[in-house]
Amino acid sequence: MKLYVIGIGPGGENEMTLRAVRALEQCDCVAGYGLYLDLIDGLLDGKERIQTGMTREVDRCTAARDAARAGHTVAVISSGDAGVYGMAGLMFEVCQEYPELEIEVIPGITAACSGGAVLGAPLTNDFCVVSLSNLLTPWETIEKRLHAAAQGDFCLCLYNPASKKRTDHLQKACDILLTVRDPKTPCGLVRNIGREGETYQLLTLGELRDTSVDMLTTVFIGNSVTEIISGRLVTPRGYRGV
Amino acid sequence: MKLYVIGIGPGGENEMTLRAVRALEQCDCVAGYGLYLDLIDGLLDGKERIQTGMTREVDRCTAARDAARAGHTVAVISSGDAGVYGMAGLMFEVCQEYPELEIEVIPGITAACSGGAVLGAPLTNDFCVVSLSNLLTPWETIEKRLHAAAQGDFCLCLYNPASKKRTDHLQKACDILLTVRDPKTPCGLVRNIGREGETYQLLTLGELRDTSVDMLTTVFIGNSVTEIISGRLVTPRGYRGV
Repeated sequence: MKLYVIGIGPGGENEMTLRAVRALEQCDCVAGYGLYLDLIDGLLDGKERIQTGMTREVDRCTAARDAARAGHTVAVISSGDAGVYGMAGLMFEVCQEYPELEIEVIPGITAACSGGAVLGAPLTNDFCVVSLSNLLTPWETIEKRLHAAAQGDFCLCLYNPASKKRTDHLQKACDILLTVRDPKTPCGLVRNIGREGETYQLLTLGELRDTSVDMLTTVFIGNSVTEIISGRLVTPRGYRGV
Repeated sequence: MKLYVIGIGPGGENEMTLRAVRALEQCDCVAGYGLYLDLIDGLLDGKERIQTGMTREVDRCTAARDAARAGHTVAVISSGDAGVYGMAGLMFEVCQEYPELEIEVIPGITAACSGGAVLGAPLTNDFCVVSLSNLLTPWETIEKRLHAAAQGDFCLCLYNPASKKRTDHLQKACDILLTVRDPKTPCGLVRNIGREGETYQLLTLGELRDTSVDMLTTVFIGNSVTEIISGRLVTPRGYRGV
């Protein structure tokens, strides 16, 4: 019995890999958050849908598992990559008592890569990916990681920078980075990556601290060598003689 | 004048996005490292090739820029993502004096995501990506970042863990992590991701320290909560009640 966990990338069908499209074609049941199912609606004709809300991930994965056990070929979809804050880990957890279920994870383009491409090339050297959501990770752990990223002069990509209830996490994160990083450090925001209404903005770390963002935004923070080249955010890798 | 920088993902056409395939179709000239051009040979019929060796990135990007200036529609391809240790940053650098060139970066699946999917879901929570190659980054900077990643309890994905000349970098990296991380920490290796002969291996951090790898290998190092679930490497995100 086969269960796919598929990363669909940031937007619609155009941002999926051929491998992901072909796996989805083989499924008769698809589980996902409603917004993400809508993004690939054209690929879901005639398929049963398991649709749950944003914070009902465990229910969704359990329902997908049970559908697979009942004989369906099931895809669980994540936006972006299936692994990076996606459903792949949780599927292994909920399926661990059912060795008859074969799980195949199909990767997708995560926001660090898709948003980076919109801005230029901010993550061309070593980087950290950190989620600012403390729903599943204690805020103290997040702060520890931000301090570590600052110490290591890592470029940063921040997922889930804010929600309706968490409005000051990005400001706190910037304050941690500002303890060691120049307020003029180039940064960028991308909203609705790969979707209708995609927008981006370049700004300094000092400006980012006082900027409001929402949960549809991905944040990029440069390191000590990140620069703006022809209006794009670029972290040079260090090729000499350019 | 249009210049695409395209991430082709880890393997062949199957791992590319539809967007990447369509952009490539519009190009009459394609620049890339020979191995990567070969991976997508079926898409390159009738196109001019700019092919240079592994360490000739500046020459390759300059030649691509000049071909675009001469009227060609050019794609520069990177394996994986175009941004993550890819050619996008360098293209912005070599094109900065030529504002008539419009650069579009098309993201691809980077090895952190494609290799993670092979192993399970090792990067489902916050993680760092670090290259162990000191060709372009001083080794002291790499060591500083490894220390920082260890302090932050980040999962790690290591690119370029070794080459013929650099045989002890992975051992040194493991020794840094072992100053704070349990030698039993689950880790994984994936070689030839998405290509013929793809293999993977799960092992502990202590075992990884004494393992030889090559430049076709991507290394994954778990954090304090990473575990083996049903033979797969998984970092739980922290959903409760599973």
